Amino acid sequence: MSFICCSYESTSSSGTTWTVVTPITFTYTVTQTKNLLDPSNDTLLLGHIRDTQQLEAIRSSTRPLKRFIVMDEVVYNLYGSQVTDYLEARHVLYRVLPLPTTEENKSMEMALKILEEVHQFGIDRRTEPIIAIGGGVCLDIVGLAASLYRRRTPYIRVPTTLLSYIDASVGAKTGVNFANCKNKLGTYIAPVAAFLDRSFIQTIPRRHISNGLAEMLKMALMKHRGLFELLETQGQFLLDSKFQSGMVLEDDRIDPASVSTRVAIETMLEELAPNLWEDDLDRLVDFGHLISPELEMKVLPALLHGEAVNIDMAYMVYVACEMGLLTEQEKFRIVCCMLGLELPVWHQDCTFALVQKSLCDRLQHSGGLVRMPLPTGLGRAEIFNDTDEGTLFRAYEKWCDELSTGSLR
Amino acid sequence: MSFICCSYESTSSSGTTWTVVTPITFTYTVTQTKNLLDPSNDTLLLGHIRDTQQLEAIRSSTRPLKRFIVMDEVVYNLYGSQVTDYLEARHVLYRVLPLPTTEENKSMEMALKILEEVHQFGIDRRTEPIIAIGGGVCLDIVGLAASLYRRRTPYIRVPTTLLSYIDASVGAKTGVNFANCKNKLGTYIAPVAAFLDRSFIQTIPRRHISNGLAEMLKMALMKHRGLFELLETQGQFLLDSKFQSGMVLEDDRIDPASVSTRVAIETMLEELAPNLWEDDLDRLVDFGHLISPELEMKVLPALLHGEAVNIDMAYMVYVACEMGLLTEQEKFRIVCCMLGLELPVWHQDCTFALVQKSLCDRLQHSGGLVRMPLPTGLGRAEIFNDTDEGTLFRAYEKWCDELSTGSLR
Repeated sequence: MSFICCSYESTSSSGTTWTVVTPITFTYTVTQTKNLLDPSNDTLLLGHIRDTQQLEAIRSSTRPLKRFIVMDEVVYNLYGSQVTDYLEARHVLYRVLPLPTTEENKSMEMALKILEEVHQFGIDRRTEPIIAIGGGVCLDIVGLAASLYRRRTPYIRVPTTLLSYIDASVGAKTGVNFANCKNKLGTYIAPVAAFLDRSFIQTIPRRHISNGLAEMLKMALMKHRGLFELLETQGQFLLDSKFQSGMVLEDDRIDPASVSTRVAIETMLEELAPNLWEDDLDRLVDFGHLISPELEMKVLPALLHGEAVNIDMAYMVYVACEMGLLTEQEKFRIVCCMLGLELPVWHQDCTFALVQKSLCDRLQHSGGLVRMPLPTGLGRAEIFNDTDEGTLFRAYEKWCDELSTGSLR
Repeated sequence: MSFICCSYESTSSSGTTWTVVTPITFTYTVTQTKNLLDPSNDTLLLGHIRDTQQLEAIRSSTRPLKRFIVMDEVVYNLYGSQVTDYLEARHVLYRVLPLPTTEENKSMEMALKILEEVHQFGIDRRTEPIIAIGGGVCLDIVGLAASLYRRRTPYIRVPTTLLSYIDASVGAKTGVNFANCKNKLGTYIAPVAAFLDRSFIQTIPRRHISNGLAEMLKMALMKHRGLFELLETQGQFLLDSKFQSGMVLEDDRIDPASVSTRVAIETMLEELAPNLWEDDLDRLVDFGHLISPELEMKVLPALLHGEAVNIDMAYMVYVACEMGLLTEQEKFRIVCCMLGLELPVWHQDCTFALVQKSLCDRLQHSGGLVRMPLPTGLGRAEIFNDTDEGTLFRAYEKWCDELSTGSLR
């Protein structure tokens, strides 16, 4: 991190005012790697260090490294022994804490439990980053705990689901649910690094791969026609191969698993990096996230995050079509692609009242404008503030007519 | 807040790495004002708004403002009705929450209690800042709660003690105690504004004014000989007049209360602003804060924060003297000044073992160096890393010989 700063003083009849202006620079890396848990790969332990001199000093030191690692319980059952074998092989002083990091448990209580264990274990809050290995919920809770400990302790994200691979691992958001609201408490503190290894995805249930494909489709619809067409044609292949195809192909550039994850991460970074603290409220990445938080919390645990997002996107595609932004044919292609990715496109609990309430909350929290991202073609989008109630309702009716259970499916 | 950003990609045999660099600019104001609770003064409600167009829009709007206010319970008993009268007179929709914000209650539980009330009351997380009125503990807890709510809700600090007036109100630190450690959990999120009104200090017990004078003396010893000499000559007057003299003098420039607070804030801002997130570990403001956190928590609630700080400073003055950085005469002047400010200069629970443990912790948390700020004259200081055990012990013995209860006092 680097700093410049100024402070200036002004005096008026009412008193003196000092204005302090201090920029703080966040720097973090997102690294795609292979064989992360192979003891010959030191990414997990040292991949976050950008200073080559510091890196050399650590490599040549005999002092053992110390790491506190939080793993989702399910991930621990699958990869726990590989992780401890890795740490043993590298002579690391470690503590691995498995936790049931589900949406229902995503609370400040769990963050405090992590903090108690971290405190008891004892880490250097500058040089011994906390490592989170798991899905988005695990990465979010650990991120929050780390950003609170001693006012900021570095942490590392290792996503093990497709969703967190392309979403939670890329940005700076941390959080827990509170008062029955999704991610109501949290921080914007980026990890020092995210280490992405696609091989974790092979143990993810098929439904959870679809779940991640929803966020990938979001970026495709908003920003990248090529990615949309890839999902349209290769969606089933990606589901069947669980993103492992890269292992057998010589050339990563033509492997759909490799291309789709790379494009998803790059388009996501393009949107997130200039707006790390979300001060710009006009965000394309909010597509699918206007109605879904309310829906997701309402039916918990019936819908996965990406499923709720997809239902939101499907409705919004109908809104875009009703507004003349998309043709019927484009709408049809998008819905077919969603179904091909095995994602739900409608839900009975997504009532029009819920749509209205969500958009009303949105207005309140987005400075009085609804700031609705809508596709204006395949892979293109804009932010709209002028969608009227009539249009929303007609789109809702058409959406239900065409996609409710028993009609299209 | 403003942003620039870049992200770049590098590819090696082990995979692709994206590096994200995003500066985030914090801007906040510290305003000294008079009659903050007079309904004709709109600082409390609008003083944080720097955009004149936005200010005009709000002033000409008939929509009532909404504010959530946390007050320390003791402060509420003294000023609660003035605050509610002010809010009523300005037609504000408000909720005032009085809380016992003592060091013993400074916990995540209290922060969560505030958050539940904030959530129930409902605020716009961009335009309706949470206001904290109280001492440092109150400002720290509310700051933490606000920085977590919706990942960052603006908050305003109104310090009511001398200590928080010159210390907590100026910087970006928030926090609560955890696992019996002071401020173990927290954030570095600056308030949008701090509003300083010296008139609150008139209801502070004399001992608490001494408490604040300790932090003022810290800045004087580290950076400002003039401020030291002012405290040396006017300390008793400041204690007797409770910093209210400015009310009767025509010229603020010669009023000791006005001069001392202004210089203390300016020297503090000089140190804090370029290092808002404390990434530079060499900090003069740490003077008096190497041993005192341990001591303060150990004897809680026997010593106030400033008292513990002063005991730490007194010992460090002996260390500086032992190292030849201060003359005997300078040491004597400093100790006399401390006694004149009615501050403790020694404590039986500040054992040499506690000194050693504190410095050992310091080493661990400051990147392997002790980074000890020591005076090198009156109003001058440097950071030292080479103080040996022998020096520390000889200084400790002399300190006890000369200042332990029953010797000097």
